[in-house]
Amino acid sequence: MSQERLEALQRALAQQQIQGFLVPRCDEYQNEYVPAADERLAWLTGFTGSAGLAAIAHDRTGLFVDGRYTIQAEQEIGSQPIEQRTLTPVDIGNWLSEALKEGDALGYDPRLHTELGLAPLKKRLQECGIQLRALETNPIDGIWENRPATPCGSARPHPQTFTGEDAASKRQRIAEQLRAKKQDALWLANPEVCAWLFNIRGSDIPHLPVALSMGFLYRDGTATLYLAEQATSDALRQHLGHDVEIVSDKSALFAAAERQHVQQVWADPLLTNCWTLYQLSNREIQILQERDPITGAKAVKNSVELEGSRAAHIRDGAALCEFLAELPGAVVGDNFGELEAVKLLREKREQREGFTDDSFDSISGYRGNGAIVHYRVTPESSLPMTAEGIYLIDSGGQYPDGTTDVTRTVALGDFPAPAKDHFTRVLKGHIAIASLRFPSGTCGEQIDAFARKPLWDAGLDYAHGTGHGVGSFLSVHEGPQRIGKANSNVALEAGMIVSNEPGFYLTGEYGIRIENLIFVKESAKYTGFLEFEELTLAPIDRQLIEPALLDDAELDWLNRYHQKVRDTLMPLVNEKTQAWLTAATQPIQRR
Amino acid sequence: MSQERLEALQRALAQQQIQGFLVPRCDEYQNEYVPAADERLAWLTGFTGSAGLAAIAHDRTGLFVDGRYTIQAEQEIGSQPIEQRTLTPVDIGNWLSEALKEGDALGYDPRLHTELGLAPLKKRLQECGIQLRALETNPIDGIWENRPATPCGSARPHPQTFTGEDAASKRQRIAEQLRAKKQDALWLANPEVCAWLFNIRGSDIPHLPVALSMGFLYRDGTATLYLAEQATSDALRQHLGHDVEIVSDKSALFAAAERQHVQQVWADPLLTNCWTLYQLSNREIQILQERDPITGAKAVKNSVELEGSRAAHIRDGAALCEFLAELPGAVVGDNFGELEAVKLLREKREQREGFTDDSFDSISGYRGNGAIVHYRVTPESSLPMTAEGIYLIDSGGQYPDGTTDVTRTVALGDFPAPAKDHFTRVLKGHIAIASLRFPSGTCGEQIDAFARKPLWDAGLDYAHGTGHGVGSFLSVHEGPQRIGKANSNVALEAGMIVSNEPGFYLTGEYGIRIENLIFVKESAKYTGFLEFEELTLAPIDRQLIEPALLDDAELDWLNRYHQKVRDTLMPLVNEKTQAWLTAATQPIQRR
Repeated sequence: MSQERLEALQRALAQQQIQGFLVPRCDEYQNEYVPAADERLAWLTGFTGSAGLAAIAHDRTGLFVDGRYTIQAEQEIGSQPIEQRTLTPVDIGNWLSEALKEGDALGYDPRLHTELGLAPLKKRLQECGIQLRALETNPIDGIWENRPATPCGSARPHPQTFTGEDAASKRQRIAEQLRAKKQDALWLANPEVCAWLFNIRGSDIPHLPVALSMGFLYRDGTATLYLAEQATSDALRQHLGHDVEIVSDKSALFAAAERQHVQQVWADPLLTNCWTLYQLSNREIQILQERDPITGAKAVKNSVELEGSRAAHIRDGAALCEFLAELPGAVVGDNFGELEAVKLLREKREQREGFTDDSFDSISGYRGNGAIVHYRVTPESSLPMTAEGIYLIDSGGQYPDGTTDVTRTVALGDFPAPAKDHFTRVLKGHIAIASLRFPSGTCGEQIDAFARKPLWDAGLDYAHGTGHGVGSFLSVHEGPQRIGKANSNVALEAGMIVSNEPGFYLTGEYGIRIENLIFVKESAKYTGFLEFEELTLAPIDRQLIEPALLDDAELDWLNRYHQKVRDTLMPLVNEKTQAWLTAATQPIQRR
Repeated sequence: MSQERLEALQRALAQQQIQGFLVPRCDEYQNEYVPAADERLAWLTGFTGSAGLAAIAHDRTGLFVDGRYTIQAEQEIGSQPIEQRTLTPVDIGNWLSEALKEGDALGYDPRLHTELGLAPLKKRLQECGIQLRALETNPIDGIWENRPATPCGSARPHPQTFTGEDAASKRQRIAEQLRAKKQDALWLANPEVCAWLFNIRGSDIPHLPVALSMGFLYRDGTATLYLAEQATSDALRQHLGHDVEIVSDKSALFAAAERQHVQQVWADPLLTNCWTLYQLSNREIQILQERDPITGAKAVKNSVELEGSRAAHIRDGAALCEFLAELPGAVVGDNFGELEAVKLLREKREQREGFTDDSFDSISGYRGNGAIVHYRVTPESSLPMTAEGIYLIDSGGQYPDGTTDVTRTVALGDFPAPAKDHFTRVLKGHIAIASLRFPSGTCGEQIDAFARKPLWDAGLDYAHGTGHGVGSFLSVHEGPQRIGKANSNVALEAGMIVSNEPGFYLTGEYGIRIENLIFVKESAKYTGFLEFEELTLAPIDRQLIEPALLDDAELDWLNRYHQKVRDTLMPLVNEKTQAWLTAATQPIQRR
């Protein structure tokens, strides 16, 4: 089927006298999760990973994916004549320079790319005499039969009891930054930015509770916001107030900016697509390409958001504990596998107040599947589970008061001998981050190695970051802060939420990851120093811990954490889970 | 006296119709230490620090220094009408925009600046309508009476028994990188680069054993080298061979490059001064501004260089131990202070084979002076020492087989109570780095925090880096690797030498720093992992250690290190020092 689609696309390109075309995974908002209507890459190639790019030439197709997706892409491509390569500018450039020839034109949809993203490729293609050509319309959209409609569920106000700050105050606060930078307007490039600024939420995108939207904030704090006609309501208009003009056509945004005499626009180069930049340049509007000030403001949670996150994590922890308590019984029954585990956990979360969605596709990995870092269980891949081996579950929920993300690794019975050593090293790294005190100004890359040291001691490591930012009833992956090897150049600030998730993966055998969300707070004792506080509440499997590998401070941390889990969750879980929780949080004594 | 100089300079500028002039600390090679003939900043302002800039306007003078030198600069400026500011592009720009007016010309000596260094200032001045003007000659040189001659001691071959690789092999190895980058030549911007590439050394600069030199390496491995007429000898010519043309006039370098039909030159923007860039541009030579490949090659020591460094550190350690052993006796005598301590240590080093110079001005800080991180003792500042309090000595030697740099902090008798806790935390940080295992590809900024964590735990930190690269009978401060908070983006590689020098400073009370040189080596046990090995050999003062704060692994490290120090140095020190060494390296038992 996909081969027909490829050929149809190649015919469409030939009609336009275009020799090649780029099909990225993202949508015009550069979203991580995209609506079904924007799953062009999956429609064309069958590849469903969260990052990737296809390049179509007149007689060849290349699919570029990163290390996480090598195996998945091979399986999903199947027997189609698609050449798989690595998702790097060099590899893409090499492939295109072979597949196309001097004088050829390579088309792209300017809504789906940023200039920053295209820059390295542009340089390479220039050297080969290949021209990059922005297309008015995406040729896939013309041949995609039965394409799902672009979602336009209603946008709704997100109450101040959850946001802690009204939208007018946010608009004024950001407008002040515009004036300081001598900018007339800020380009609001995506739904997350708009959701935070205007205190609105929606349900247009899987796992991300936002309404598709973009717009301008002006230097006086007024704004123009694009929302689909059907997404608006009287309640929403009232919530947004007179200072926010709503338009239902994206082009009207630029007309509005002209009426406001905008001459200088601040647009984040990581978020802003090429089409927008062209719209601005065509109107001779100057562009300041710097990081969106909302990115930083959104990352620092206020006390209401932190209190909300605490409350959401308590309900989420109760749901997770009920799941973990039922797991041993479930796996001795028939027909229980990775997929059924995801369903059971979802049921448990749905029973909790305010749950609206998973915050991402759960990673439910039994035995060897747990070692696939970005594993997504499918009916084909789902392993039946039994009362032995190791199981990893990484999942989260969206609640109006907070977004959760938690990973637990549990033994379902006997397990391979080295797992205890590996698990305890991961736990030591987890505790090192959780209990760290560090001076203001410290960036995530400066503390990342504390999570890895116990593994490094044994010549081991893990090939992913240690922590990512998390939104407040927004994206489960939120910048700008992170904890990882790569330079973020972003200091961890009081109020930021990050994940703490070291891991270890033994290919074909098991995956281990221990993930809690934590937030940064001022040290009560030492001025100028910061510490973390736990949000996530769920026992860490004692069966997998080797106490002899923990020092006194580590044992202390673990026992205190388990006591907090027990004390907080005990009143909120069913009877069966209470018994399980009591056992699972027993203090561990030094042997 | 300096005020007369300032006025003479202002008159000279007025004659040239220049309204301002920049006087940086560095010389045309961007050296850290400069010959006396290039100490223009000190001659003009009296300020003798290792980094700084003066800006002269027609009726005002500004001196810009960093935090290390605030106090020293104030003292050295004295009553002169010089305004002291911070050494940042913003502060310099602000001052110049006030001191000069639109239409004014600000002169600079293009030999003493890099384009990279001037860039932020240039932008700011443009906005103010002030023109930056490169001057043919430096106006200070025209008014400096009795200016010391530019040194031109003879350059000498540095034998392969120390370098481990002959110069022809080095030239071919680097030329290969030129060809890979499609460059016709590499600009050899400074004496360090030339010293490494051609295996030559000299004595033109304090503490840095090089001959003033610059040149071109061509893509075929041949070269043109500038050396002063008097610096060359038949032995040197023979050593350099037929493939290296020597010129005694810098302009002749560019003529030589023209004869070689050089059209593309690789020049490091951090090292290459503006004058050179103009010379190249005037000849329509294209410039690739990237990090000099020699910087990376020079940083990775071969086995002969590492063996040499080990040997130099043994002799240097023996000298340091004799000094430390005599210190308690010396301080009970009369007239022994910080300055006398430096002299005594220098005498001890001079007795050791091959010693040619200190590798930098020793930091000899008693009590509160030890808390001044970049303290340089002078006859005026030198405190008399007695049998109490804490003393910090940071020093190093240049030997043909290696460059050393070591800091020890010792108690001369009773000392303030908190020092033991502080010293032990610094020691824990030192041991954390020394005993670390880490994967290939790890940069210094990723491990820096291990050195700080024991201090962070107590709400403390230190305001300097943890480690710098060290040359092989070259500069004691050598890039590109470092261990610090700032991003180096340079992975630590097997063969690199770095310092490990955490510290703690209690203003007015004492300074603590424990510094060893260590080198990176492959882990014998774990493929893909690196470890450090100690080069520096000298006891760490047991009087200042609180054993209860050390865990078993830390105590183990300390006792093993002390045993290695004792076993290695015992046969090489005098009798008095042998007794001292035995006591100073006794194992510490857990209480």
